Amino acid sequence: MDKDRFHKQLDFLVEIDKLKTVLRQSLIIDKSKRENSAEHSWHIALMGTILYEYCDKDKVNLARAVKMALVHDIIEVYAGDTFAFDLEGYKDKQEREQEAADKIFGMLPEDQGIELRKLWEEFEAMETYDARFAAAMDRLQPFILNYHTEGHTWKLGNVNSKMVYKRIGVLKEACPDLWDSINEMIKDSIEKGYLKE
Amino acid sequence: MDKDRFHKQLDFLVEIDKLKTVLRQSLIIDKSKRENSAEHSWHIALMGTILYEYCDKDKVNLARAVKMALVHDIIEVYAGDTFAFDLEGYKDKQEREQEAADKIFGMLPEDQGIELRKLWEEFEAMETYDARFAAAMDRLQPFILNYHTEGHTWKLGNVNSKMVYKRIGVLKEACPDLWDSINEMIKDSIEKGYLKE
Repeated sequence: MDKDRFHKQLDFLVEIDKLKTVLRQSLIIDKSKRENSAEHSWHIALMGTILYEYCDKDKVNLARAVKMALVHDIIEVYAGDTFAFDLEGYKDKQEREQEAADKIFGMLPEDQGIELRKLWEEFEAMETYDARFAAAMDRLQPFILNYHTEGHTWKLGNVNSKMVYKRIGVLKEACPDLWDSINEMIKDSIEKGYLKE
Repeated sequence: MDKDRFHKQLDFLVEIDKLKTVLRQSLIIDKSKRENSAEHSWHIALMGTILYEYCDKDKVNLARAVKMALVHDIIEVYAGDTFAFDLEGYKDKQEREQEAADKIFGMLPEDQGIELRKLWEEFEAMETYDARFAAAMDRLQPFILNYHTEGHTWKLGNVNSKMVYKRIGVLKEACPDLWDSINEMIKDSIEKGYLKE
Protein backbone atom coordinates (compact mmCIF):
# COMPACT_ATOMS: atom_id res chain seq x y z
CA MET A 1 0.00 0.00 0.00
CA ASP A 2 1.56 3.24 -1.25
CA LYS A 3 0.29 5.92 1.13
CA ASP A 4 1.56 8.78 -0.98
CA ARG A 5 -0.45 7.45 -3.91
CA PHE A 6 -3.61 7.16 -1.80
CA HIS A 7 -3.19 10.67 -0.45
CA LYS A 8 -2.98 12.06 -3.97
CA GLN A 9 -6.21 10.25 -4.82
CA LEU A 10 -7.83 11.52 -1.66
CA ASP A 11 -6.77 15.12 -2.31
CA PHE A 12 -8.24 14.86 -5.81
CA LEU A 13 -11.52 13.46 -4.46
CA VAL A 14 -11.68 16.33 -1.96
CA GLU A 15 -10.87 18.94 -4.62
CA ILE A 16 -13.60 17.82 -7.02
CA ASP A 17 -16.15 18.37 -4.25
CA LYS A 18 -16.08 21.96 -5.55
CA LEU A 19 -17.98 20.87 -8.65
CA LYS A 20 -21.08 20.93 -6.41
CA THR A 21 -20.82 24.71 -6.38
CA VAL A 22 -20.28 25.27 -10.11
CA LEU A 23 -23.64 26.57 -11.30
CA ARG A 24 -24.95 25.99 -14.80
CA GLN A 25 -27.50 28.19 -16.53
CA SER A 26 -30.16 25.45 -16.46
CA LEU A 27 -32.81 25.38 -13.79
CA ILE A 28 -33.69 22.00 -12.33
CA ILE A 29 -37.17 20.89 -13.38
CA ASP A 30 -39.04 22.14 -10.29
CA LYS A 31 -37.40 25.54 -10.99
CA SER A 32 -36.29 25.89 -7.37
CA LYS A 33 -32.63 26.49 -8.21
CA ARG A 34 -29.94 26.43 -10.87
CA GLU A 35 -28.39 23.07 -11.54
CA ASN A 36 -24.76 22.49 -10.65
CA SER A 37 -22.25 20.49 -12.67
CA ALA A 38 -22.03 17.60 -10.19
CA GLU A 39 -25.79 16.98 -10.34
CA HIS A 40 -25.70 17.34 -14.10
CA SER A 41 -22.90 14.77 -14.36
CA TRP A 42 -24.85 12.28 -12.27
CA HIS A 43 -27.93 12.83 -14.40
CA ILE A 44 -26.21 12.23 -17.73
CA ALA A 45 -24.36 9.15 -16.44
CA LEU A 46 -27.68 7.61 -15.45
CA MET A 47 -29.30 8.83 -18.67
CA GLY A 48 -26.64 6.96 -20.63
CA THR A 49 -27.39 3.81 -18.67
CA ILE A 50 -31.12 4.06 -19.40
CA LEU A 51 -30.85 5.06 -23.07
CA TYR A 52 -27.95 2.79 -24.06
CA GLU A 53 -30.24 0.60 -26.16
CA TYR A 54 -30.65 3.41 -28.70
CA CYS A 55 -26.99 3.61 -29.64
CA ASP A 56 -24.97 1.09 -31.62
CA LYS A 57 -24.19 -1.32 -28.80
CA ASP A 58 -21.53 -3.09 -30.86
CA LYS A 59 -19.57 0.12 -31.00
CA VAL A 60 -20.27 1.95 -27.74
CA ASN A 61 -18.72 0.71 -24.50
CA LEU A 62 -21.22 1.86 -21.89
CA ALA A 63 -18.81 1.66 -18.95
CA ARG A 64 -16.37 4.00 -20.73
CA ALA A 65 -19.13 6.39 -21.75
CA VAL A 66 -20.40 6.52 -18.14
CA LYS A 67 -16.88 7.19 -16.90
CA MET A 68 -16.61 10.04 -19.41
CA ALA A 69 -19.91 11.43 -18.17
CA LEU A 70 -18.65 11.37 -14.58
CA VAL A 71 -15.39 13.08 -15.51
CA HIS A 72 -16.38 15.38 -18.38
CA ASP A 73 -16.98 18.50 -16.28
CA ILE A 74 -14.42 18.29 -13.50
CA ILE A 75 -12.15 20.83 -15.18
CA GLU A 76 -14.92 23.31 -14.31
CA VAL A 77 -13.68 23.21 -10.73
CA TYR A 78 -11.20 25.81 -12.00
CA ALA A 79 -12.50 26.84 -15.44
CA GLY A 80 -16.16 27.38 -14.49
CA ASP A 81 -19.11 26.38 -16.64
CA THR A 82 -19.33 27.94 -20.10
CA PHE A 83 -22.92 28.43 -21.23
CA ALA A 84 -23.50 26.40 -24.39
CA PHE A 85 -24.85 29.39 -26.28
CA ASP A 86 -22.35 31.99 -24.98
CA LEU A 87 -20.20 32.85 -28.01
CA GLU A 88 -18.04 35.25 -25.98
CA GLY A 89 -17.29 32.65 -23.30
CA TYR A 90 -16.36 30.10 -25.96
CA LYS A 91 -13.52 32.28 -27.25
CA ASP A 92 -11.11 31.39 -24.45
CA LYS A 93 -12.87 28.21 -23.31
CA GLN A 94 -10.20 25.89 -24.66
CA GLU A 95 -7.31 27.79 -23.10
CA ARG A 96 -9.06 28.08 -19.73
CA GLU A 97 -9.96 24.39 -19.76
CA GLN A 98 -6.52 23.13 -20.76
CA GLU A 99 -4.99 25.02 -17.85
CA ALA A 100 -7.63 23.66 -15.52
CA ALA A 101 -7.00 20.14 -16.83
CA ASP A 102 -3.27 20.45 -16.09
CA LYS A 103 -4.13 21.39 -12.54
CA ILE A 104 -6.95 18.99 -11.67
CA PHE A 105 -5.70 15.85 -13.44
CA GLY A 106 -2.20 16.70 -12.21
CA MET A 107 -3.34 16.07 -8.65
CA LEU A 108 -3.77 12.35 -9.30
CA PRO A 109 -1.02 9.73 -9.42
CA GLU A 110 0.53 10.08 -12.88
CA ASP A 111 -1.01 6.95 -14.46
CA GLN A 112 -4.53 7.87 -13.35
CA GLY A 113 -4.13 11.52 -14.21
CA ILE A 114 -3.05 10.66 -17.74
CA GLU A 115 -5.87 8.14 -18.15
CA LEU A 116 -8.61 10.53 -17.02
CA ARG A 117 -7.22 13.43 -18.99
CA LYS A 118 -7.18 11.33 -22.15
CA LEU A 119 -10.75 10.32 -21.47
CA TRP A 120 -11.77 13.95 -21.03
CA GLU A 121 -9.94 14.95 -24.23
CA GLU A 122 -11.63 12.09 -26.06
CA PHE A 123 -15.00 13.37 -24.83
CA GLU A 124 -14.21 16.91 -25.96
CA ALA A 125 -13.07 15.80 -29.42
CA MET A 126 -16.30 13.79 -30.01
CA GLU A 127 -14.57 11.58 -32.54
CA THR A 128 -15.06 8.13 -31.03
CA TYR A 129 -18.34 6.24 -30.60
CA ASP A 130 -18.06 6.35 -26.80
CA ALA A 131 -17.47 10.10 -26.83
CA ARG A 132 -20.32 10.77 -29.22
CA PHE A 133 -22.74 8.78 -27.10
CA ALA A 134 -21.60 10.56 -23.91
CA ALA A 135 -21.80 13.92 -25.68
CA ALA A 136 -25.30 13.09 -26.94
CA MET A 137 -26.40 12.56 -23.33
CA ASP A 138 -24.64 15.78 -22.32
CA ARG A 139 -26.71 17.65 -24.94
CA LEU A 140 -29.97 15.81 -24.37
CA GLN A 141 -30.04 16.42 -20.61
CA PRO A 142 -30.18 20.26 -20.67
CA PHE A 143 -32.57 19.97 -23.64
CA ILE A 144 -34.95 18.01 -21.40
CA LEU A 145 -34.54 20.53 -18.58
CA ASN A 146 -35.33 23.33 -21.02
CA TYR A 147 -38.38 21.53 -22.33
CA HIS A 148 -39.70 21.20 -18.77
CA THR A 149 -38.88 24.76 -17.67
CA GLU A 150 -40.56 26.56 -20.58
CA GLY A 151 -37.22 27.00 -22.33
CA HIS A 152 -35.50 28.78 -19.46
CA THR A 153 -31.96 28.91 -20.88
CA TRP A 154 -33.19 29.21 -24.47
CA LYS A 155 -34.91 32.44 -23.51
CA LEU A 156 -31.93 33.53 -21.45
CA GLY A 157 -29.55 33.06 -24.37
CA ASN A 158 -31.94 34.29 -27.07
CA VAL A 159 -31.59 30.87 -28.67
CA ASN A 160 -33.39 29.81 -31.86
CA SER A 161 -34.22 26.35 -33.16
CA LYS A 162 -31.34 26.39 -35.64
CA MET A 163 -28.90 26.70 -32.73
CA VAL A 164 -30.61 23.85 -30.89
CA TYR A 165 -30.54 21.63 -33.99
CA LYS A 166 -26.83 22.29 -34.37
CA ARG A 167 -26.08 21.66 -30.70
CA ILE A 168 -28.07 18.44 -30.50
CA GLY A 169 -26.86 17.12 -33.86
CA VAL A 170 -24.57 14.60 -32.18
CA LEU A 171 -27.63 12.88 -30.70
CA LYS A 172 -29.03 12.28 -34.17
CA GLU A 173 -25.78 10.61 -35.07
CA ALA A 174 -25.28 8.61 -31.85
CA CYS A 175 -28.91 7.55 -31.28
CA PRO A 176 -30.68 7.85 -34.63
CA ASP A 177 -33.79 6.03 -33.37
CA LEU A 178 -34.42 8.78 -30.84
CA TRP A 179 -34.35 11.52 -33.42
CA ASP A 180 -38.05 11.55 -34.36
CA SER A 181 -39.14 11.94 -30.74
CA ILE A 182 -36.61 14.68 -30.03
CA ASN A 183 -37.50 16.50 -33.21
CA GLU A 184 -41.16 16.44 -32.13
CA MET A 185 -40.15 17.99 -28.81
CA ILE A 186 -38.24 20.76 -30.61
CA LYS A 187 -41.25 21.51 -32.81
CA ASP A 188 -43.51 21.42 -29.76
CA SER A 189 -41.14 23.84 -27.96
CA ILE A 190 -41.42 26.30 -30.84
CA GLU A 191 -45.20 25.95 -30.89
CA LYS A 192 -45.43 26.58 -27.15
CA GLY A 193 -43.20 29.65 -27.36
CA TYR A 194 -40.31 28.14 -25.37
CA LEU A 195 -37.97 28.41 -28.33
CA LYS A 196 -37.72 30.81 -31.26
CA GLU A 197 -38.20 29.31 -34.74
CA MET B 1 -38.62 2.37 -32.21
CA ASP B 2 -41.23 1.88 -29.47
CA LYS B 3 -42.31 5.42 -28.56
CA ASP B 4 -44.26 4.28 -25.52
CA ARG B 5 -41.11 2.66 -24.17
CA PHE B 6 -39.06 5.81 -24.76
CA HIS B 7 -41.65 7.99 -23.07
CA LYS B 8 -41.56 5.81 -19.97
CA GLN B 9 -37.77 6.18 -19.89
CA LEU B 10 -38.09 9.91 -20.39
CA ASP B 11 -40.67 10.29 -17.61
CA PHE B 12 -38.36 8.37 -15.28
CA LEU B 13 -35.39 10.58 -16.19
CA VAL B 14 -37.52 13.65 -15.51
CA GLU B 15 -38.80 12.29 -12.19
CA ILE B 16 -35.35 11.51 -10.81
CA ASP B 17 -34.40 15.15 -11.34
CA LYS B 18 -36.01 15.57 -7.90
CA LEU B 19 -33.01 13.85 -6.31
CA LYS B 20 -31.23 17.19 -6.72
CA THR B 21 -33.49 18.59 -3.99
CA VAL B 22 -33.14 15.74 -1.48
CA LEU B 23 -30.83 17.16 1.17
CA ARG B 24 -28.48 15.03 3.21
CA GLN B 25 -27.12 15.98 6.63
CA SER B 26 -23.57 16.37 5.30
CA LEU B 27 -22.18 19.75 4.40
CA ILE B 28 -20.09 19.96 1.26
CA ILE B 29 -16.44 20.61 2.04
CA ASP B 30 -16.51 24.42 1.66
CA LYS B 31 -19.45 24.36 4.16
CA SER B 32 -21.54 26.61 1.90
CA LYS B 33 -24.53 24.23 1.81
CA ARG B 34 -25.87 20.80 2.61
CA GLU B 35 -25.10 18.14 0.06
CA ASN B 36 -27.93 16.63 -1.97
CA SER B 37 -28.29 13.00 -2.96
CA ALA B 38 -27.63 13.57 -6.67
CA GLU B 39 -24.27 15.22 -5.95
CA HIS B 40 -23.44 12.52 -3.44
CA SER B 41 -24.21 9.80 -6.01
CA TRP B 42 -21.93 11.41 -8.57
CA HIS B 43 -19.17 11.70 -5.99
CA ILE B 44 -19.27 8.05 -4.92
CA ALA B 45 -19.46 6.81 -8.52
CA LEU B 46 -16.28 8.71 -9.32
CA MET B 47 -14.71 7.66 -6.02
CA GLY B 48 -15.29 4.04 -6.98
CA THR B 49 -13.55 4.66 -10.29
CA ILE B 50 -10.51 6.20 -8.60
CA LEU B 51 -10.20 3.73 -5.73
CA TYR B 52 -11.02 0.53 -7.64
CA GLU B 53 -7.42 -0.68 -7.36
CA TYR B 54 -7.87 -1.23 -3.61
CA CYS B 55 -10.62 -3.83 -3.94
CA ASP B 56 -10.32 -7.38 -5.19
CA LYS B 57 -10.45 -6.65 -8.92
CA ASP B 58 -11.01 -10.31 -9.77
CA LYS B 59 -14.26 -10.19 -7.86
CA VAL B 60 -15.61 -6.67 -8.24
CA ASN B 61 -17.10 -5.57 -11.57
CA LEU B 62 -16.48 -1.83 -11.57
CA ALA B 63 -19.13 -1.01 -14.17
CA ARG B 64 -21.81 -2.73 -12.06
CA ALA B 65 -20.61 -1.04 -8.88
CA VAL B 66 -20.70 2.38 -10.59
CA LYS B 67 -24.21 1.69 -11.85
CA MET B 68 -25.23 0.79 -8.29
CA ALA B 69 -23.73 4.05 -7.05
CA LEU B 70 -25.71 6.02 -9.63
CA VAL B 71 -28.95 4.26 -8.73
CA HIS B 72 -28.57 3.57 -5.00
CA ASP B 73 -30.38 6.67 -3.75
CA ILE B 74 -33.09 7.30 -6.34
CA ILE B 75 -35.79 5.84 -4.07
CA GLU B 76 -35.15 8.96 -1.94
CA VAL B 77 -37.10 10.93 -4.54
CA TYR B 78 -40.12 9.68 -2.54
CA ALA B 79 -38.64 8.23 0.66
CA GLY B 80 -36.28 11.11 1.55
CA ASP B 81 -32.81 10.68 2.95
CA THR B 82 -32.45 8.83 6.25
CA PHE B 83 -29.52 10.11 8.31
CA ALA B 84 -27.09 7.26 8.87
CA PHE B 85 -27.06 7.76 12.63
CA ASP B 86 -30.80 8.43 13.09
CA LEU B 87 -32.09 5.34 14.93
CA GLU B 88 -35.66 6.64 14.89
CA GLY B 89 -35.66 7.22 11.14
CA TYR B 90 -34.27 3.74 10.54
CA LYS B 91 -37.33 2.10 12.13
CA ASP B 92 -39.58 2.56 9.11
CA LYS B 93 -36.80 3.09 6.55
CA GLN B 94 -37.29 -0.26 4.87
CA GLU B 95 -41.06 0.10 4.51
CA ARG B 96 -40.79 3.66 3.18
CA GLU B 97 -38.10 2.67 0.73
CA GLN B 98 -39.87 -0.41 -0.60
CA GLU B 99 -42.95 1.67 -1.39
CA ALA B 100 -40.78 4.30 -3.04
CA ALA B 101 -39.02 1.58 -5.06
CA ASP B 102 -42.36 0.25 -6.34
CA LYS B 103 -43.19 3.72 -7.53
CA ILE B 104 -39.91 4.93 -9.03
CA PHE B 105 -38.73 1.70 -10.67
CA GLY B 106 -42.32 1.08 -11.78
CA MET B 107 -42.09 4.10 -14.06
CA LEU B 108 -39.58 2.36 -16.32
CA PRO B 109 -40.30 -0.24 -18.99
CA GLU B 110 -40.74 -3.50 -17.08
CA ASP B 111 -37.40 -5.10 -18.03
CA GLN B 112 -35.40 -2.03 -17.00
CA GLY B 113 -37.44 -1.43 -13.87
CA ILE B 114 -36.82 -4.98 -12.69
CA GLU B 115 -33.11 -4.78 -13.53
CA LEU B 116 -32.53 -1.51 -11.65
CA ARG B 117 -34.64 -2.59 -8.68
CA LYS B 118 -32.64 -5.80 -8.37
CA LEU B 119 -29.45 -3.76 -8.53
CA TRP B 120 -30.72 -1.46 -5.76
CA GLU B 121 -31.78 -4.43 -3.63
CA GLU B 122 -28.38 -6.02 -4.16
CA PHE B 123 -26.75 -2.78 -3.00
CA GLU B 124 -28.93 -2.64 0.09
CA ALA B 125 -28.27 -6.29 1.03
CA MET B 126 -24.46 -5.78 0.82
CA GLU B 127 -23.91 -9.47 0.19
CA THR B 128 -22.12 -9.45 -3.16
CA TYR B 129 -18.63 -8.13 -3.88
CA ASP B 130 -19.99 -5.41 -6.17
CA ALA B 131 -22.46 -4.25 -3.53
CA ARG B 132 -19.86 -4.24 -0.78
CA PHE B 133 -17.49 -2.14 -2.85
CA ALA B 134 -20.26 0.30 -3.76
CA ALA B 135 -21.39 0.43 -0.12
CA ALA B 136 -17.81 1.04 1.00
CA MET B 137 -17.67 4.12 -1.25
CA ASP B 138 -21.10 5.19 0.05
CA ARG B 139 -19.70 5.10 3.61
CA LEU B 140 -16.29 6.54 2.82
CA GLN B 141 -17.65 9.62 1.03
CA PRO B 142 -19.57 11.16 3.98
CA PHE B 143 -16.67 10.14 6.22
CA ILE B 144 -14.37 12.30 4.10
CA LEU B 145 -16.85 15.18 4.15
CA ASN B 146 -17.02 14.88 7.94
CA TYR B 147 -13.26 14.83 8.26
CA HIS B 148 -13.06 18.06 6.24
CA THR B 149 -15.92 19.86 8.02
CA GLU B 150 -14.73 19.31 11.59
CA GLY B 151 -17.11 16.37 12.01
CA HIS B 152 -20.25 18.30 11.11
CA THR B 153 -22.73 15.39 11.06
CA TRP B 154 -20.88 13.50 13.79
CA LYS B 155 -21.51 16.41 16.12
CA LEU B 156 -25.06 16.80 14.83
CA GLY B 157 -25.87 13.15 15.57
CA ASN B 158 -23.84 12.92 18.78
CA VAL B 159 -21.83 10.17 17.10
CA ASN B 160 -18.93 8.36 18.74
CA SER B 161 -16.04 6.44 17.19
CA LYS B 162 -17.65 3.07 17.91
CA MET B 163 -20.58 4.04 15.68
CA VAL B 164 -18.22 5.20 12.93
CA TYR B 165 -16.19 1.98 13.13
CA LYS B 166 -19.39 -0.02 12.78
CA ARG B 167 -20.70 2.06 9.89
CA ILE B 168 -17.46 2.01 7.94
CA GLY B 169 -16.76 -1.69 8.63
CA VAL B 170 -17.69 -2.65 5.08
CA LEU B 171 -14.77 -0.59 3.78
CA LYS B 172 -12.34 -2.66 5.85
CA GLU B 173 -13.78 -5.73 4.18
CA ALA B 174 -14.02 -4.39 0.62
CA CYS B 175 -10.74 -2.44 0.53
CA PRO B 176 -8.53 -3.87 3.29
CA ASP B 177 -5.43 -2.00 2.06
CA LEU B 178 -7.13 1.32 2.75
CA TRP B 179 -7.92 0.45 6.33
CA ASP B 180 -4.74 1.74 7.97
CA SER B 181 -5.11 5.18 6.39
CA ILE B 182 -8.80 5.43 7.28
CA ASN B 183 -8.15 4.26 10.81
CA GLU B 184 -5.52 7.00 11.15
CA MET B 185 -8.10 9.55 10.03
CA ILE B 186 -10.57 8.28 12.64
CA LYS B 187 -7.96 8.57 15.39
CA ASP B 188 -7.01 12.00 14.13
CA SER B 189 -10.68 13.04 14.17
CA ILE B 190 -10.95 12.01 17.82
CA GLU B 191 -7.75 13.88 18.67
CA LYS B 192 -8.97 17.01 16.96
CA GLY B 193 -12.32 16.89 18.73
CA TYR B 194 -14.38 16.23 15.58
CA LEU B 195 -15.54 12.86 16.88
CA LYS B 196 -16.19 11.51 20.37
CA GLU B 197 -14.00 8.57 21.47
